[in-house]
This record gives sequence, structure tokens and C-alpha cells, in this order.
Amino acid sequence: MSLARVHNFAISLDGFGTGEGQSREAPFGHAGERLHEWMFKTRFWYDMIGKSGGNAGVDDAFARQFDAGVGAEIMGAGKYGFPGWHEDPEWKGWWGPNPPFHTPTFILTHHPRPAIEMEGGTTFHFLDASPAEALEAARKAADGQDVRIGGGATVIREFLAARLIDHMHVVVVPLLLGRGVRLWDELEDLEKDYDIEAVSSPSGVTHLTFTRTGG
Amino acid sequence: MSLARVHNFAISLDGFGTGEGQSREAPFGHAGERLHEWMFKTRFWYDMIGKSGGNAGVDDAFARQFDAGVGAEIMGAGKYGFPGWHEDPEWKGWWGPNPPFHTPTFILTHHPRPAIEMEGGTTFHFLDASPAEALEAARKAADGQDVRIGGGATVIREFLAARLIDHMHVVVVPLLLGRGVRLWDELEDLEKDYDIEAVSSPSGVTHLTFTRTGG
Repeated sequence: MSLARVHNFAISLDGFGTGEGQSREAPFGHAGERLHEWMFKTRFWYDMIGKSGGNAGVDDAFARQFDAGVGAEIMGAGKYGFPGWHEDPEWKGWWGPNPPFHTPTFILTHHPRPAIEMEGGTTFHFLDASPAEALEAARKAADGQDVRIGGGATVIREFLAARLIDHMHVVVVPLLLGRGVRLWDELEDLEKDYDIEAVSSPSGVTHLTFTRTGG
Repeated sequence: MSLARVHNFAISLDGFGTGEGQSREAPFGHAGERLHEWMFKTRFWYDMIGKSGGNAGVDDAFARQFDAGVGAEIMGAGKYGFPGWHEDPEWKGWWGPNPPFHTPTFILTHHPRPAIEMEGGTTFHFLDASPAEALEAARKAADGQDVRIGGGATVIREFLAARLIDHMHVVVVPLLLGRGVRLWDELEDLEKDYDIEAVSSPSGVTHLTFTRTGG
């Protein structure tokens, strides 16, 4: 069965997945890279940027679940680009010529454009669709493998609200952003559909995993 | 030095310290007792209600920091009673004749009334005062010992915003309340004043401790 999975999605203690004031210069707004510093110290990240080093502890063990068995990604317009990217015909995401997805990648947008084939196996497809429709398209493209729901907070929240997520890994970072885009709004009683585990890391972050139960 | 301390303050994953719809019948609103079940299983709690049993693990280790070295408590009107308690001259809190505070206990309210002496060392004092003024009064009463800031969420948030808390223990419970009173609003950059540790428990909750740094 092809699962819908969230990995390495970081939020602040007060529940923000990104800051306020996102722009071309500040992809995460006033949050900067503070939600992701835990990941930059992992061996997973060092490997990805082609360096040696990094820690091989619990943060790394979680971080490297990102790839295995994933055949497609779905992301929101706000992850793909700065507000207004759809007016820039040259915009191809933040990640350079070889993005880290290496699969078909579906961008949910009200401004679809033709698909863009990148290096390394990533093809960006642009869809104006509901979460359920997008998941159906991504599953087809994933060819039996799982689909990663890549974020941002709004997209994950919509997929959770539609009860489409099978497995979710959230990383709670001990800082208070105060403003931005919240992950948890309007999700009362979500825990009834999931087994939830919490594991704190010596780095200070806490890993939460949500595993959908049969019910 | 007399510290201002928070202990055993439980919130949901989405940051609510109490639910919506608090009343005489539902002190925590729609949250019920779900934020406190972790504590009811500790040896600390069993001791308090005069029974034997309970677990002696990490939840218990944190729970029993509640008393040691505390000479006074400050709480909000919403912890002391249901909405409208000030119109009931007989109301003496939720805790029966022998409340679990055993010290002078200051209730922040816009409707002060004469002090009430209870059994076991608890005296309720009613104050219409700012956080800083209340802390000064409680410190005097604590006679050199620490002051516990007892909650609810609004009161703790106000004391945090005024940078009056020296030590805080928050328990994150893996459920989504969706509505109620939030602890974390308007506290951007709070982490800069504290060392924060996170420890997950096999019970599923995560203990957060905030220790004020010198800065």
C-alpha cells in the first residue's frame, strides 16, 4: 500500500512551521533557518551536501527516513517559491538545477504552468487540485511507492484535516516564533486516529511521530 | 534568593492549558482531565490522595518538584473558580477544606474579598494587582522561600511576558484540544532568556524545563 508520509517537518514550541514575512530573500520569513539547524548537524545533511561529518544520533536516524520508499512529493505553493513566484516565468524553486526530491514533485497552486524537468530525477508538476485529488495523481506517479507530503504548514494541516496522512514526523524546536503559519490549528481530536510517540534528542529538539491506527 | 517557579503545568500539543467552556461542572472545559492523566499515575499523586502505588519514573520525578522550597502560590481567578465564582460568597476553591497548597495562596482577581483561612496551612488572599505587585506580596509571605506561579495559562503567560519567571516546568501532552486558552501567545524570542531542556517520558508526555539564564 502506498502511504502518505510527512518527514522532518519542524515547528516552534508555539506551533509555527514558518515565520512571518516570507520573501525571495527570506524563504522562512523572520524564522530564518532556526527551525532547521538541528538537521544541518546530521550526517544525513552532510551526505546530501557532499561533505563528510555530522552526527549519527537520533536526529540523524529520523532525518534519513526522508527518502526511503518515496516515489513522489506533494508541496504547497508557499514551499515552492516566494509569494508571487507565479509571476516569474523563470522561477524553478529554491533548490538549484538538481533539487533534493529526485521524484515527480507536485506543486499545489492556483496558477498552474507546464511541467519542468530538472536534473536528478525531479520533475515539477503544477496542479490546481484538492488534497485528495493531488494525492491520487501523486500516487499514480509514485508507481506503488509512498508519497511525501512536503509542506508547508498549511498543506500538511489540510491533508491532516482531510485525514489523508498515514505517517507523520514532526520536530519541535525549543524556540518561540510568536507569529507565522501554524501547523496545529483546527485539528481537535487528531490524536484519536494516531499512535503518537515523542522522543527528545540531546540536541534539544523533540521528535514526534504519528502513526495512523486501524480505526 | 526567592525564585518564581512553575510546576506541572500541562498543555496540549497545540498549546492549550485548558479547554473551552469552563464551568462549575467542567473546571477544564472540554479538555476534562485529559491534560492531567499523566500525573494521576505518579507516586506523587497517590501519596497526595493517601493511597499506595503509582509510578516512580520520570513523570513522578518532575511532579514532586511541586512542593519543595515553595512558601507561597499565586494563581489566576480562572484557576480558583468557575467563571462567576466571585458572585458566590461561599466559594472556597475546588479543593475542599484542605487544599494542596499548604502556604499563603494569592488569587489575582478584580473582585477581591477578605482572606480565607483553610486547613493544612493554606490561606487564600485575594489581590487586584499586576504580576510584579503580586509577586512582591507573595515573596513577603513566602518568608525567603520560592513562589509558585500556579496558573492558569493566562497568568503564566502574563508572568512570562513580564519576564518574572525563573524556572518553569511545562508538560506537553500528545493530544489536540483545538480550542481553549493558549500558553504561548505573544512570547516571541522567550527562549533567549532561558536554557530549555526537553525530556520525553514513556508515558507519552514530554517534560520541558525553562531555567532562566544570567542575561
